[in-house]
Amino acid sequence: MTLPASVEFHEEGPREGFQMETGRFALADRAALIDALSAAKLKQIQVGSFVSPRAVPQMADTPDLFAAIHKQPGTRYTALWLNTNGFERARACAQVDLDGKVMFYTSEGFSQSNNNCSVREMRDRQLVWIDRYIELGIPFEQAYVMTAFGCNFSGAIPLATITDLLRWLKDACADRHIPLPAIYLADTMGWGNPEEIKRRIGAVRELLPDAPIGLHLHDTRGLGGANVYAALQMGVRLFDSSVAGLGGCPFAGHKYGGAAGNICTEDMAFMCEELGIDTGLDLDALIEAARLAERIIGRPLAGRVMHSGLPSTHKQSMQH
Amino acid sequence: MTLPASVEFHEEGPREGFQMETGRFALADRAALIDALSAAKLKQIQVGSFVSPRAVPQMADTPDLFAAIHKQPGTRYTALWLNTNGFERARACAQVDLDGKVMFYTSEGFSQSNNNCSVREMRDRQLVWIDRYIELGIPFEQAYVMTAFGCNFSGAIPLATITDLLRWLKDACADRHIPLPAIYLADTMGWGNPEEIKRRIGAVRELLPDAPIGLHLHDTRGLGGANVYAALQMGVRLFDSSVAGLGGCPFAGHKYGGAAGNICTEDMAFMCEELGIDTGLDLDALIEAARLAERIIGRPLAGRVMHSGLPSTHKQSMQH
Repeated sequence: MTLPASVEFHEEGPREGFQMETGRFALADRAALIDALSAAKLKQIQVGSFVSPRAVPQMADTPDLFAAIHKQPGTRYTALWLNTNGFERARACAQVDLDGKVMFYTSEGFSQSNNNCSVREMRDRQLVWIDRYIELGIPFEQAYVMTAFGCNFSGAIPLATITDLLRWLKDACADRHIPLPAIYLADTMGWGNPEEIKRRIGAVRELLPDAPIGLHLHDTRGLGGANVYAALQMGVRLFDSSVAGLGGCPFAGHKYGGAAGNICTEDMAFMCEELGIDTGLDLDALIEAARLAERIIGRPLAGRVMHSGLPSTHKQSMQH
Repeated sequence: MTLPASVEFHEEGPREGFQMETGRFALADRAALIDALSAAKLKQIQVGSFVSPRAVPQMADTPDLFAAIHKQPGTRYTALWLNTNGFERARACAQVDLDGKVMFYTSEGFSQSNNNCSVREMRDRQLVWIDRYIELGIPFEQAYVMTAFGCNFSGAIPLATITDLLRWLKDACADRHIPLPAIYLADTMGWGNPEEIKRRIGAVRELLPDAPIGLHLHDTRGLGGANVYAALQMGVRLFDSSVAGLGGCPFAGHKYGGAAGNICTEDMAFMCEELGIDTGLDLDALIEAARLAERIIGRPLAGRVMHSGLPSTHKQSMQH
């Protein structure tokens, strides 16, 4: 078990954060946050989603947001879509950096609830996406495995559900003569623990030794940081995260709704840098971005290092 | 590296939490919280401190608080003191379970700031405490090493500072024919990272293989959970913690003041139980205690599992 030499954080705060918040936030503020994240040298920022404006009114102005930001070289500005209509809207927006991705469900309860169809049906539908990406010359880069550690609807997710799915994906890629995408295990509902993280990453790597492995983690139950450290011990170098821990809502008292934010970009980047793992990020700029996010949201956010500052010995510390 | 079969959490919330809060809280509420913590089967609860009522007015009524709680068999109800006067007040309070402890400084800046004397002088003063405990038949149980991972005043703390101190302590115990106490490495200001946790625990264990090792961690920079997991990987089984993460204050914007709470008892206990490590705790009761703490404090606290609930597959889950 060796820590990786470098890791990459893919920023999800602008989408995860503002879609969870019930208030509406000024476009100029959201654009400023994305520009602040660019200044921190994040290599990938998910700007927003092309989903139904009726379902998620906060994301209706995603094209305007893309037009308002100042894209920086070296950073990819991505978006989320969930159906053909959304994908076509994303394609129509010249500023979007299209990344080919698919989303696999592992829980019947969650798939039925979200998609009104079975896990198997959802799986087969992803072939249409893969073929569309190939047709359009968009590299197929990421395959997300949802609720890969457990699900509020269906409980435990057997590891075999994941490995069966990945065997199927391996065949689908082989049939199409394309390389495997990065496999993202998504702990959608915060069920993972460090040992299970290691076990499942180990199983994926054994099955698909050539595929990069990524994690999409939520800090729902306070194990986010431990789960990242466990993944680092397994050599994982791709993480989705949200600046300031955006995405949670401590005021939501409802079951499974409270404090469900993503792992916090700057806290986890700080941990990596302290461990000698290169993030390529400007931590001081990232902390400034987190503080901006907090000012925009208007209440204390979950991030820690944004409130405490970097230790004076940290190589990037400017003595906040 | 093997995880321990069981761990013990020593609850610091009632002291850490209410001493940090500027508001005054009703004695009945604080007593109810301690009773709720007893119901969760914590083996040690630090009820309050016997310190100068001028310096910490919130702790002035510690004797009344001890009188108000309902002590349960199997739980020790401890207190903090920092000088002879405080210790005598603690001794005079029949309900206090006296535990012999000393506190070593490693940072000149912090020692001067807190005690107006050098690290070495503070060290030598602890001999008076050790001898007093022996004289009174109080077992010398815990030696705290403050700012063991770094200090806001003095920066990095060399490992040799700690090992030199512990060699001195070993001789002091040998001279007195008493066993070594548990060595608690205290990350007073949240400077620790998982690899440094492992390195320093390894060094202490190599030097004092017979001494139990404990950790007193703060989640100042978001690495608390990862640090606990690293310590578990080193077989550590003693942790100080605070219910609901009490002790932090997200509204304190001042440098190094914000969000400096202890690691959260129920989140870390949840992690241990998920890892198959026995905590002896009733997690459902612990979550109820965390919710009570939040009601008393009157704002959202840092704990996560108290807001999200236990996963339905958790053995103790009552489907919160």
